[in-house]
Amino acid sequence: MSKFWSEIVHLTDPYVPGEQPKQQNIIKLNTNENPYPPSPKVLAALREGANEYLRLYPSPTVDELLQAAAKQFAVSPDQVFVGNGSDEVLAFAFLAFFTKGEVIRFPDITYSFYSVYAKLYGLEYEEVPLLPDFTIPVEQFFDSEGGVIFPNPNAPTGVYLPLAAVEEVLVHNPNKVVIIDEAYIDFGGESAIRLINQYDNLLVIQTLSKSRSLAGLRIGFAFGNKELIEGLNRIKNSFNSYTIDRLAIIGAVAALEDTVYFAETREKIICSREKVAAQLQLLGFTILESKANFLFIKHNLLPAEVLYTKLKEKGIFVRYFNKPRICEYIRLTIGNEEEMDRFIHEVKVILHT
Amino acid sequence: MSKFWSEIVHLTDPYVPGEQPKQQNIIKLNTNENPYPPSPKVLAALREGANEYLRLYPSPTVDELLQAAAKQFAVSPDQVFVGNGSDEVLAFAFLAFFTKGEVIRFPDITYSFYSVYAKLYGLEYEEVPLLPDFTIPVEQFFDSEGGVIFPNPNAPTGVYLPLAAVEEVLVHNPNKVVIIDEAYIDFGGESAIRLINQYDNLLVIQTLSKSRSLAGLRIGFAFGNKELIEGLNRIKNSFNSYTIDRLAIIGAVAALEDTVYFAETREKIICSREKVAAQLQLLGFTILESKANFLFIKHNLLPAEVLYTKLKEKGIFVRYFNKPRICEYIRLTIGNEEEMDRFIHEVKVILHT
Repeated sequence: MSKFWSEIVHLTDPYVPGEQPKQQNIIKLNTNENPYPPSPKVLAALREGANEYLRLYPSPTVDELLQAAAKQFAVSPDQVFVGNGSDEVLAFAFLAFFTKGEVIRFPDITYSFYSVYAKLYGLEYEEVPLLPDFTIPVEQFFDSEGGVIFPNPNAPTGVYLPLAAVEEVLVHNPNKVVIIDEAYIDFGGESAIRLINQYDNLLVIQTLSKSRSLAGLRIGFAFGNKELIEGLNRIKNSFNSYTIDRLAIIGAVAALEDTVYFAETREKIICSREKVAAQLQLLGFTILESKANFLFIKHNLLPAEVLYTKLKEKGIFVRYFNKPRICEYIRLTIGNEEEMDRFIHEVKVILHT
Repeated sequence: MSKFWSEIVHLTDPYVPGEQPKQQNIIKLNTNENPYPPSPKVLAALREGANEYLRLYPSPTVDELLQAAAKQFAVSPDQVFVGNGSDEVLAFAFLAFFTKGEVIRFPDITYSFYSVYAKLYGLEYEEVPLLPDFTIPVEQFFDSEGGVIFPNPNAPTGVYLPLAAVEEVLVHNPNKVVIIDEAYIDFGGESAIRLINQYDNLLVIQTLSKSRSLAGLRIGFAFGNKELIEGLNRIKNSFNSYTIDRLAIIGAVAALEDTVYFAETREKIICSREKVAAQLQLLGFTILESKANFLFIKHNLLPAEVLYTKLKEKGIFVRYFNKPRICEYIRLTIGNEEEMDRFIHEVKVILHT
């Protein structure tokens, strides 16, 4: 607390990310990172990019990266925006499309950064309760006064909303922006990007942090009609001319281009998820159907907080949310096969002691 | 223009950075980059850092970088904030310390991003006219209603305000934050960082873009008492948990540690600046005394816009600001010796044709 803080600082309620423990030899299944390294082509490109040109500013318009993304996602470059991680894209989008005094809507159980942005900008919001099975009550998002945002698949549940239902939300909010946050879409869902030409109120947000193994490089995208993208650029260019550094541009382009590696690692994670889900079911867990790179699970006999703590003692970090409706669950990121075998083994030990 | 834009988007007046031309073989003296490459130790560290760990998020608290900066600048880690370039630090600082309805002050001729931030956040501002010799009228900054910001040395003039005068501004604004933007301080000025323990209203901003040759990596710092730093962290953590990517952290630490390379390249630029200034004086130019890595110059016979255009035709990019009071000047970044020789040669040719 300080007399020098603006009113806005007092209103903030900063986001608390999952732990980034410093000790070695832990199994880190708490922040939905990819267990596989970035594409070897990405690492080679980055090494080559670590050169004298770092003395020069990056391109403020990141044209090369817009073109690579446009090609990959079958849109035009003026339908793409790039940010310093999808969190920055979200922060700009809240400022660009949501207006003070007009209540926005998002689910009661969702990415907890949404309410943080709303508080930062003084936006009013309504948390729409998910149905008891954690699916999104689509009609509750119709005719929103200020706009709509939700992740698809949702976090931390992993539950996916079919594209036809997303479309319903778009149709019923013709004058307000609907933001679909697709951080986890590559693990089994169908992206709404193909709807951007049809719905001028649709903004789709994606990231290279999850399915492209680049959480450490900070690259997020928004896709939408070019007026929405221009709105984001006006905010970005009033904030920081160069948000994406030279190496991030180079790494992102290489990641988008290596579609073979992307498909391989994505498939491996999807297979591991299904295998682990089946194993956990046999151990008495209830598992929400997930289209993400994580599972949201609970056990009838073993309280979630106990499981979280016991796993941590064994060097396995998962995420536990001490919040109404979800405090019986833990969120488990899908690791590599060895990590998943170890996880299942330790869960068995915990259940039998 | 779009019906989906928030009121804030309509209020913005985005910053326009200097050109980043794509053609090769140009001499780029328009955005105050360093003509020398980053330290070889930085490039080696970055190559080593391009590894499998990029799959993991960076540290949200960038402790390692805070410690390296604290050591280098003789402060404690909780007196340091790191951002994605000093522009991001400035954007957070405007939000954290300036309040709507309280008029802030900055010079009429200064870094043109300040008014852009003010418009983004709906802040009122007063542009205090510089004196005819482009020095800062210190007393005009006393008792500001909302706070004060100016660069030292100032941009685009290069004119430096001695630390005793900065202290006067601090003393006369005990209840408002005074931001000293020291992007160019390493080229001959004395930093105000040593005053942060004495003045709890002082925030000093620096960057690795200029004197550390890392414009392409995007690293900026703020130094101040720990309550001010906490205010910045509250904003940052309400905006984006991970603003500094893994490679930027690694490169920044290496850059701060290589003090020998830093001192060498800085000296070379200062020497070149003095040499070029003397040469230009002989050619009839008026040169403001600069403590930055650029010169602000005018010629009585040759209009600035003509010089700018003719240099550009010859592949030499400098910066021209078509604004009242400074439209007679061009801003010339100090390049390497070869670039400066070529520049002087071409200016002679232009003057004699």
